[in-house]
Amino acid sequence: MLRFALPITLISSALAAAPALMPLPVTVRPAAGKLTLDATFKAALVSAPDARLDAAIGRFVVRLSRQTGIPMLGLKDAAPKLRVECAGAGSEYPALGEDESYALDVSSEGALLKAPTRSGALHGLETLGQLVVLAQDGFEIAAVHIEDAPRFPWRGLMMDSARHWMPLEVVKRNLDAMAAVKLNVFHWHLSDDQGFRVESKRFPKLQQEGSDGLFYTQDEIRGVVEYARDRGIRVVPEFDIPGHTTAWLAGYPELGTNPGPYQIGRKWGVYENALDPSREETYAFLDAFFEEMAGLFPDPYFHIGGDEVVDKQWNESARVQAWAKQNNLKDARAIQAFFNQRVQKLLEKRGKVLIGWDEVLHPDLPQGIVVQSWRGQKSLAEAAAKGYRGILSWGYYLDHLRPAAYPYGVDPMSGDAAKLSPEEKARILGGEMCMWAEYTTAETEDSRIWPRAAAVAERFWSQESTKDVDSMYARMEGVSRWLGWTGIQHRANYAPMLERMTGGRPVEPLRVLADAVEALGLGQRHRAGTFTSLTPMNRLADAARPESESVRALELAAVRVVADPKGSPAETALLRREFARWTANDARFQELAAESGPGGTPLLVELRPLSRDLAALGNAGLKLLDAIEKGQAPAADFVAGQTKEIARMEKPAAEVSLAATRPVKILLKGGKK
Amino acid sequence: MLRFALPITLISSALAAAPALMPLPVTVRPAAGKLTLDATFKAALVSAPDARLDAAIGRFVVRLSRQTGIPMLGLKDAAPKLRVECAGAGSEYPALGEDESYALDVSSEGALLKAPTRSGALHGLETLGQLVVLAQDGFEIAAVHIEDAPRFPWRGLMMDSARHWMPLEVVKRNLDAMAAVKLNVFHWHLSDDQGFRVESKRFPKLQQEGSDGLFYTQDEIRGVVEYARDRGIRVVPEFDIPGHTTAWLAGYPELGTNPGPYQIGRKWGVYENALDPSREETYAFLDAFFEEMAGLFPDPYFHIGGDEVVDKQWNESARVQAWAKQNNLKDARAIQAFFNQRVQKLLEKRGKVLIGWDEVLHPDLPQGIVVQSWRGQKSLAEAAAKGYRGILSWGYYLDHLRPAAYPYGVDPMSGDAAKLSPEEKARILGGEMCMWAEYTTAETEDSRIWPRAAAVAERFWSQESTKDVDSMYARMEGVSRWLGWTGIQHRANYAPMLERMTGGRPVEPLRVLADAVEALGLGQRHRAGTFTSLTPMNRLADAARPESESVRALELAAVRVVADPKGSPAETALLRREFARWTANDARFQELAAESGPGGTPLLVELRPLSRDLAALGNAGLKLLDAIEKGQAPAADFVAGQTKEIARMEKPAAEVSLAATRPVKILLKGGKK
Repeated sequence: MLRFALPITLISSALAAAPALMPLPVTVRPAAGKLTLDATFKAALVSAPDARLDAAIGRFVVRLSRQTGIPMLGLKDAAPKLRVECAGAGSEYPALGEDESYALDVSSEGALLKAPTRSGALHGLETLGQLVVLAQDGFEIAAVHIEDAPRFPWRGLMMDSARHWMPLEVVKRNLDAMAAVKLNVFHWHLSDDQGFRVESKRFPKLQQEGSDGLFYTQDEIRGVVEYARDRGIRVVPEFDIPGHTTAWLAGYPELGTNPGPYQIGRKWGVYENALDPSREETYAFLDAFFEEMAGLFPDPYFHIGGDEVVDKQWNESARVQAWAKQNNLKDARAIQAFFNQRVQKLLEKRGKVLIGWDEVLHPDLPQGIVVQSWRGQKSLAEAAAKGYRGILSWGYYLDHLRPAAYPYGVDPMSGDAAKLSPEEKARILGGEMCMWAEYTTAETEDSRIWPRAAAVAERFWSQESTKDVDSMYARMEGVSRWLGWTGIQHRANYAPMLERMTGGRPVEPLRVLADAVEALGLGQRHRAGTFTSLTPMNRLADAARPESESVRALELAAVRVVADPKGSPAETALLRREFARWTANDARFQELAAESGPGGTPLLVELRPLSRDLAALGNAGLKLLDAIEKGQAPAADFVAGQTKEIARMEKPAAEVSLAATRPVKILLKGGKK
Repeated sequence: MLRFALPITLISSALAAAPALMPLPVTVRPAAGKLTLDATFKAALVSAPDARLDAAIGRFVVRLSRQTGIPMLGLKDAAPKLRVECAGAGSEYPALGEDESYALDVSSEGALLKAPTRSGALHGLETLGQLVVLAQDGFEIAAVHIEDAPRFPWRGLMMDSARHWMPLEVVKRNLDAMAAVKLNVFHWHLSDDQGFRVESKRFPKLQQEGSDGLFYTQDEIRGVVEYARDRGIRVVPEFDIPGHTTAWLAGYPELGTNPGPYQIGRKWGVYENALDPSREETYAFLDAFFEEMAGLFPDPYFHIGGDEVVDKQWNESARVQAWAKQNNLKDARAIQAFFNQRVQKLLEKRGKVLIGWDEVLHPDLPQGIVVQSWRGQKSLAEAAAKGYRGILSWGYYLDHLRPAAYPYGVDPMSGDAAKLSPEEKARILGGEMCMWAEYTTAETEDSRIWPRAAAVAERFWSQESTKDVDSMYARMEGVSRWLGWTGIQHRANYAPMLERMTGGRPVEPLRVLADAVEALGLGQRHRAGTFTSLTPMNRLADAARPESESVRALELAAVRVVADPKGSPAETALLRREFARWTANDARFQELAAESGPGGTPLLVELRPLSRDLAALGNAGLKLLDAIEKGQAPAADFVAGQTKEIARMEKPAAEVSLAATRPVKILLKGGKK
């Protein structure tokens, strides 16, 4: 495993040609030789016929052809270079806990992929796709023996289609990317205050009044479930109740605690509206609704949300209070537990297991339910100790836009979970990333999920000991590019968004600035302004990436230069070039911002101070490099002045953060990263 | 029309904010005011219900939302800002010669689009989409009155799905882009020596033996025809006979003049294989085949190819010769005319009008057929004079990768056609671009078609007097970006292809080089090497654009600087910056090329001399600018040396041409462009 797990250094040719494997497999043993890829490449299932696996192998070859630019027509007279042996297809749908292992052997003659189930075979194909490198003789796969299996059986990603509408193609391309990094649960948040996104034939006003016409038809839902299944992914739907239900109430106000009328929510944040737990009609409605949805979603797990219920309406409703008293429910928490018990029984009747967020945890609920912990590792451990199975989501909120290192560093078994007994630990099924969509759209969703989700997928799949952050970053960048071949748009949408901001004017000055900033997460944007579902999402804060790859490269270079000024000429040259670019960029940026008229367009005008700061950072960086190269310490007043300036620049502006401060700060502090 | 048709100057803020309209409408009258776009924007059909037009309006709003980044949810309580009035839906399918006109009025209050047919309304929506600009207050449409109608009724694009397979999504996104520039005929080249691409249920060996499994099912074909119809586009299928038929013969060798067996062609070029015209079984087969295909393709026009028939097999076949003698057919040309007469009758029986390439023109064929002229303007005029209707394709071969100015300068009514009588001229229906696919793949197809096809679309739609090349280029660049919002990948695929070439290493040095070169067309690539359908298409020659936008900007700047050295500081700065970039780039490029090992990867190694040449051009350019700024003539020996060097560099290398020579040459020649 040595060859692939080395911490990757900056601009290292030997390692740049190494494959970017993510998640890192359990065992990787390099062998002698290599499999050269050309137009005669062909793949075949050599075990019992399986149309779905055949189709997956077909997709694999199409992607291989795309990632190499080599036509692969499956010539009749060519022998298969990849043979896939699958012992059994496994269950009709991917199932929690099934054997997902595989073994892969690559030699000069060909590749052999063996797996006990279709899911295992699918994972093996993805690993093979990641093994392709460009070398001296063209595209090839180095000979290797790989054995692999996941650490956790539940490796999920939650997508929120309620806050901003996510068209079908966004869902599908994210399923492809999920499969590419071996995630196996698509948790689909389908209703919230701002939208109800599934067609109900039984209760059509749910989508008619609750979705602005933006919902998935039942055929589309079925299509997504099949699409996911064919990629080894379970679909767990979430209908969040009894809070987060304003969009339900737009069509069916009689379900609400208050009389209504209700309208689709446009603002973000927590709403007070909640279903009325005191009326039998509420449960009758849910019973019929679950029956309909159970027919659409074959997975045994069914998510009812249950988070952030505001008790105000219940407390102020005489009807609810009288009913609560009658039933000995002393407070809102008891009311919700009662409600959940009823709901759990309705689901059980349909063969469904209830999942809910932390708040559903209550001694009155049976141990069969699953708790998804968003509030912390403590509640996960608590649930496990009490006999409940659990999934960790705390720490994995992608919409906070923290650097990949942060969620990568959170382990489902760390924190309070570390103190559990082996039996209790076994109840922790894995983890799920959450991608809430208040600040993402169809256009930006991919770049807020990828490539960081690949790092978290590694956390869920690979061994606990796989946690070297430098190695993760170096591989993540390669995987990020490779993910583009699956069709995900996280890189492709960047340039068009910047071009839109300049209205067709030359985009380069904006791109230099955009590469040097990072987008802010939900909390900071929420504090920065008043956003609703009608707010344009066309600013730099939307186009900018959560984590700047180029700034990270500069940080690594700065650390090297500080540690060994004489021994780092390439790093010094890189820093000089970038600092000079920042410095020179400002004049061009200011000209661009002014071009559309006296004040310029608002999209660029708000960035003018940022551009000036970037130029100042470039200047400071160049001066620091001069001093370092001369072996001198920079003047104390310069250091003091710059330290103060950088502290100012570190405060968010225009809802982005100036990542460019970081490498300069490293030089300024003399290497204390 | 003044405001939009001005020749556009370099970096002019006022005009940069002007909309990029292409094709330019017949009448454009600016008015006072502007329509500001925000989340309340809503569009509605206010005339008789029409589900297809409704869907088109829905797609328009989705694209408007994407091109502005503003959510447009069609809020219930908002009044429509765009009202569409369509007098009548028109025919079930778009029809040759139907009224495609429209009138558009935009004011501060809203927009009104009026059209006599659905096709006209569709065109008006595209114009409205192009009118959107980013201004000081955000995205808006300046108030305007537009009246518009096409000059020619047949405005086509031919796509070749036979040489390289074009997946369904390539076809569909190109239909979207076609509609965006008001093209109305999709000519689909579906069979050739290298592939038979349609499922035949009657003769399944056509696709089974002739397609490597890469063909469109009948359901998919029907889907494409509907998709095109919904966008105002006719689909004209082409099954090329009696030559270009090797892929037919793979499954049905008995149709061939020679006994076979046959295999799918892998090489490019003209094959000798031809159907046997002497056997009745050939016509019986075609009769049944046409019956099946007539059911799939509702358009009355049906293309039978008929080009490049090699007479060798016919001449050498005793059977064919005996039969020819019996029928008084004195040569291959007479044989083909006989064959075409039979085929024409078979088609007529199915209500189809025969179209063929030049070669079908023969006095024995009835005047109802249509001749598509690929060999020159002369044959088009000749056909028209003889009473045949015709379409011009000569000059519009996109696969030759000539700059947009070239096909833009070819007018269907120029050349020999100019001498025709009005009655004869009326037989010239319009034009069609051809995109033969020997040197394109699904990945590169879009960039070989777009944006140049937009300029040719203007030739087919706009007035004959609309021919200012500078204005065309300035608008084409804007339209090119806008076309990205329709989903076409001509810009999006560029960066991933470059990244693939570097195997994950930093791509910038390659991008600087790639921006300075241009891809070569079919003829030059054909001469450069032996290509087959199995050749990798992953080199710079595939990634590079047919026409470098950045080099064109430098050419314009160079012309300005030469004409007025003191008055062009912005242009001088632009040239200096780019020349310096080229010069500095070579060291980084050579390092990149060497990184993957001793010799580097073949994809980069072949570019090393080009990179050195680019650096030399940068150096020469900087020296020339120095001399110009000093008001001095450059030294004679320098001029002589550079002239020689540039002449050398102008020869293609690595199957690309170094476009960067052009601006330097302008400076060197002192302004003679």
